[in-house]
Amino acid sequence: MTFFLSRRRLLGGALGLAGLELMKPTVSFALPARIQHQPGITLPQLPFLYFITFDLTTDKKSDIAALMRKWTEAADALMKHESAPHLVDSGDVEGLEPGTLTLTFGFGPGLFMKDGKDRYGLAACRPAPLEDLPRFTGDQLVPAHTGGDLCVQSCATDPQTAFHAIRILARLADNIATPRWAQTGFSPDFAKHQTGRNLMGFKDGTIQPDITNPAVADRVLWAAPTDKPWMQGGTYLVARIIRIALEHWDRTNTGFQEQTMGRQKQSGAPIGGHHEYEPLTLKQTDKDGNPITPENAHARLAAPQENGGAELLRRSYSYDNGLSYIAERWPPWRQGNEFDAGLMFLAYQQDPRTAFTKIFERMSKFDMMNQYTTHIGSGLFACPGRMEGHYVGEELLG
Amino acid sequence: MTFFLSRRRLLGGALGLAGLELMKPTVSFALPARIQHQPGITLPQLPFLYFITFDLTTDKKSDIAALMRKWTEAADALMKHESAPHLVDSGDVEGLEPGTLTLTFGFGPGLFMKDGKDRYGLAACRPAPLEDLPRFTGDQLVPAHTGGDLCVQSCATDPQTAFHAIRILARLADNIATPRWAQTGFSPDFAKHQTGRNLMGFKDGTIQPDITNPAVADRVLWAAPTDKPWMQGGTYLVARIIRIALEHWDRTNTGFQEQTMGRQKQSGAPIGGHHEYEPLTLKQTDKDGNPITPENAHARLAAPQENGGAELLRRSYSYDNGLSYIAERWPPWRQGNEFDAGLMFLAYQQDPRTAFTKIFERMSKFDMMNQYTTHIGSGLFACPGRMEGHYVGEELLG
Repeated sequence: MTFFLSRRRLLGGALGLAGLELMKPTVSFALPARIQHQPGITLPQLPFLYFITFDLTTDKKSDIAALMRKWTEAADALMKHESAPHLVDSGDVEGLEPGTLTLTFGFGPGLFMKDGKDRYGLAACRPAPLEDLPRFTGDQLVPAHTGGDLCVQSCATDPQTAFHAIRILARLADNIATPRWAQTGFSPDFAKHQTGRNLMGFKDGTIQPDITNPAVADRVLWAAPTDKPWMQGGTYLVARIIRIALEHWDRTNTGFQEQTMGRQKQSGAPIGGHHEYEPLTLKQTDKDGNPITPENAHARLAAPQENGGAELLRRSYSYDNGLSYIAERWPPWRQGNEFDAGLMFLAYQQDPRTAFTKIFERMSKFDMMNQYTTHIGSGLFACPGRMEGHYVGEELLG
Repeated sequence: MTFFLSRRRLLGGALGLAGLELMKPTVSFALPARIQHQPGITLPQLPFLYFITFDLTTDKKSDIAALMRKWTEAADALMKHESAPHLVDSGDVEGLEPGTLTLTFGFGPGLFMKDGKDRYGLAACRPAPLEDLPRFTGDQLVPAHTGGDLCVQSCATDPQTAFHAIRILARLADNIATPRWAQTGFSPDFAKHQTGRNLMGFKDGTIQPDITNPAVADRVLWAAPTDKPWMQGGTYLVARIIRIALEHWDRTNTGFQEQTMGRQKQSGAPIGGHHEYEPLTLKQTDKDGNPITPENAHARLAAPQENGGAELLRRSYSYDNGLSYIAERWPPWRQGNEFDAGLMFLAYQQDPRTAFTKIFERMSKFDMMNQYTTHIGSGLFACPGRMEGHYVGEELLG
């Protein structure tokens, strides 16, 4: 079983007849078939996540190239439920049913420029979409959970398998890169053909770009043909650790929760609608002329039609780190342990400047949900494609 | 489906003929059939854990009684995949297949005596086995992850369901008790009839008391007939957060890992043995007269025959909290982020003084595994039985 779907095969499947593909000019026909996408990007997503970032400690580009070669070899083995070469396996997943595992690698801005220094002579290769994210309204980013020169997204059918892979990859990074921050996550299997619910109890993922349509995927998800050659077949990942004040949310009545979200809780239908997949009621007004989906509702502010068509592919997980101490900033100013839980937001897109940043700049100012959510960590990564037979990033580092 | 197995039914099942039970004097025949055990104690264990403790903030015993009544009602509903009464459900598990959930409640020493004060007039009801644990060699207990006046063990088929229940129970505790510490855990489904592996890669749980034998359960697990009347049908829980230095363990060769553990890694067989369930090789020596299972091997120090027959029922989970900053106390004195992961040790027993404490006092001094493990949190709880139709703890608090 291969996890690397070649562009050619993806097209063939989507169109039914491979011979038709050259007739569709929107379908990046110029992309060589030898360029593959990394696994772990398209949907559906596996139920458990281990996301980790690393700071590079080496001063040699050749060390990073050697690491990416080792990581790619190890990932190829691990995804086949084999042991990574050149290492004694930790053995903790022996006896688990060979589950599914995807490993996805990304490069942060620090690979190209850090503290004003071009450490590896790669500054000229930095792609324009990998522009540092701006500071958004309300950001409370903790440096220890923000940034990273490299990232690995490990998704698996169980948490032990996801962690097993990360342990091995972290060992291989010795003396080259050191772990910076990590966040685990989960997204349990809801009943078939049902959208999963996040910790707020609302369906999460009803509106997604239809990336099974290659024209949509090429417009929304995969790097543009005009992007750097080493990014062809790649995509950009925005990661945000979004803590949710669950204690407060749970004490908010369902009516106000629905106004905040812009959807009905039980069915997932738009306000005033009946079915989850109906179009949002963005233009409908009540008898007094007020919009039935509030102006500041989350779903409205996230909708492509309210953002000039901007879209991204969400691939988020709930997270739960137990408790942490909080001194509340609002009445009744309670001090004590609250749930350290929320959403590990992961989204892939062609260009964060015109996708995540464009959408979230407005949301960060106006979304009613901001009363309950705080962005406490952030990362931005370029996840390259992969040439058949090459390691991930070889076109940049090799 | 009921999760409360009555003593009578348990005996009936175990003996095949309910009428035989009075003939077995070791089977606590004096215990009224109306006393039930709490769920979540016997095996097998569900794959996900949320364990939380609370500090009592009220000064009224009647508040605690009211809380335990509400908790019991809520638990009964949640374990049937229903919403808890008197609350708007957070809705985050709607659409999940009705999975299995167990909720187990316990009382810490602080309910009976705290800072030298008998806050609730319950000091005389404190059972002798709930004696504070001694300080063990090597303990590095963090106060913020130690203790607790109340505990809840939530085990479920997925992490969202386990957390869902805890969110609801925490809301019900408002103004009576406040969350103190929590730890999530997992124990993935290994292939059928195979013992699961912990993060060290070794099988964990090969030797357990056979509590399907009521005589064993009554000797090892359930409170003694001579214990306090309110503890009849109950048991004692020792919880320990055991951080494992996985980076170091993973760099230790398998031969030394096996010497440390006193078992073979792949098969789980004793040193020099062939099968997992063979007796440990505690007396065998090599040609030089040295024991083939080292004197300080973990499995030897844990074995009942090396501890005067002391036994307990382990019900542990692996835990994974991502990364935390460590300044190593040994060469090469590395400073940086390491995996904050290990074992959430949970063990139920008739009397911790003659079980956990007896066994661990020697292990804490001599176990070779202590090079890799650090106890960073601890809790001790009396988990009462439950009278049919009563709330958990009613015989103590009512």
